[in-house]
Amino acid sequence: MPTIAVFDSGFGGLTVLRALLPLIPDARFLYLGDTARLPYGAKSQQTIARYALSSAAFLLAQGAQMLVVACNTASALALDELKAALPIPVIGVIEPGAQAANALARHPSSLFPLPSSLASVLVLATAATVQSNAYTKACAALGLTIHEKACPLLVPLVEEGWTDHPVTAEVLRIYLAEALAEAPSVQTLVLGCTHYPLIKPLIERVLRELGHPLHIVDSAAATAIAAAKVLPAVSSEGEAIPPTFYATDSIEKFQRLGSAFLGQALPEVKLIDLGG
Amino acid sequence: MPTIAVFDSGFGGLTVLRALLPLIPDARFLYLGDTARLPYGAKSQQTIARYALSSAAFLLAQGAQMLVVACNTASALALDELKAALPIPVIGVIEPGAQAANALARHPSSLFPLPSSLASVLVLATAATVQSNAYTKACAALGLTIHEKACPLLVPLVEEGWTDHPVTAEVLRIYLAEALAEAPSVQTLVLGCTHYPLIKPLIERVLRELGHPLHIVDSAAATAIAAAKVLPAVSSEGEAIPPTFYATDSIEKFQRLGSAFLGQALPEVKLIDLGG
Repeated sequence: MPTIAVFDSGFGGLTVLRALLPLIPDARFLYLGDTARLPYGAKSQQTIARYALSSAAFLLAQGAQMLVVACNTASALALDELKAALPIPVIGVIEPGAQAANALARHPSSLFPLPSSLASVLVLATAATVQSNAYTKACAALGLTIHEKACPLLVPLVEEGWTDHPVTAEVLRIYLAEALAEAPSVQTLVLGCTHYPLIKPLIERVLRELGHPLHIVDSAAATAIAAAKVLPAVSSEGEAIPPTFYATDSIEKFQRLGSAFLGQALPEVKLIDLGG
Repeated sequence: MPTIAVFDSGFGGLTVLRALLPLIPDARFLYLGDTARLPYGAKSQQTIARYALSSAAFLLAQGAQMLVVACNTASALALDELKAALPIPVIGVIEPGAQAANALARHPSSLFPLPSSLASVLVLATAATVQSNAYTKACAALGLTIHEKACPLLVPLVEEGWTDHPVTAEVLRIYLAEALAEAPSVQTLVLGCTHYPLIKPLIERVLRELGHPLHIVDSAAATAIAAAKVLPAVSSEGEAIPPTFYATDSIEKFQRLGSAFLGQALPEVKLIDLGG
């Protein structure tokens, strides 16, 4: 039974854990939300790498055999450092998201599958993820054209619980209209932040209102599939074990908000101190 | 010439520094924004106290002779720890704000000055400040009735630069209508977060639209006056020295956003590492 660690700055990565649970049912999962130091979205590369490394070291000490960096910002800014420092496989959310967008562009069920060189992708993400150019690099490697849009208000709106609210719809209208004006030919939208799956229905509605429906890639699901592929032949025998949850702050808030992201109630959350 | 340190989790405290500069023109000012660990608003008391103490230790080492905690969250949750740990006067923003609200209730220019026991105050603040009950205690000590409203979206909206924007107006309409429905008799509004002075004109407009204009207390100005009172007879002789600015992350963002809070361009900002 493999021990798989899932790491995020907060609760957002629970959407990735949610996708992993049914896919790898006999794994032991550890989840760490570095809530004392969130959000990572507006911080510098050096700071984010330092936070990610100390979080990974803790998870390694708990027996992690694989690390899923379920945070776009940390994947964008600290994946190379994590891969270099850890003796276990490390999977981020950026590359699986880009690959899923690419697969969608060539999908055989599409009437007119595009060569990826003509496929154009819009990525919504935090300011730090956009500034990192990580999606640009991942998409360029696949021959995809990309346009990125920083959406700093979406995480606070999701955390306020306004996932189906007129204000969130209006903010999405502004962000999406600006992005589509700059990149009118995009066909695919990548949700480049693990908070965004919670407003996917609202994003779809606003896109319809704007007369510009898009295929939407949820990188949480794409990342879970990528993690399953890396695992050596997974036995489906073992008993399901409930995940263990760690947070660096605000246990109560973690449990309260986390259940919306995980899609089920969270059991006990353990408070840990990573310094800082 | 006194050395006065002003501390905040980010740029918000620059509104307090802005009020201090003309009031104590011959002081040497140090400003520290603990931007690597912001926002404090959603973190626990223990974490906030730890951050505030390490920031204060740095400022003391730079020669600070007085500390102005220009952050409502840190004032609400760490002022006692700071006062106990530091050998210099420490001033927070909560008590000056409450005292200004009380003075307004009894203001002789009002036709019908109220006894403070009948005066009712609405405080807008972050979730952590509200949960701390710090304003409740400060107002109760003055005999003021208080109603608090957590407004988690206002800081992100101000930091997005949407200080005069329809979305911010709509969010304010929602927050203020909810608060006024629960406390219809309030006469005074305290801006319980140093980010909020930037949306004071919008708050005034929304209150007029709601048919419920309020006296607004800007605790930045009240805090600057309280700091000036604590200083031993300030000589107005010395030369004006430009403030020194420190931040723990995002120098570029600090300079760019900070100027809106300070009301003038920021000179060099020094990056420091407080760990964490």
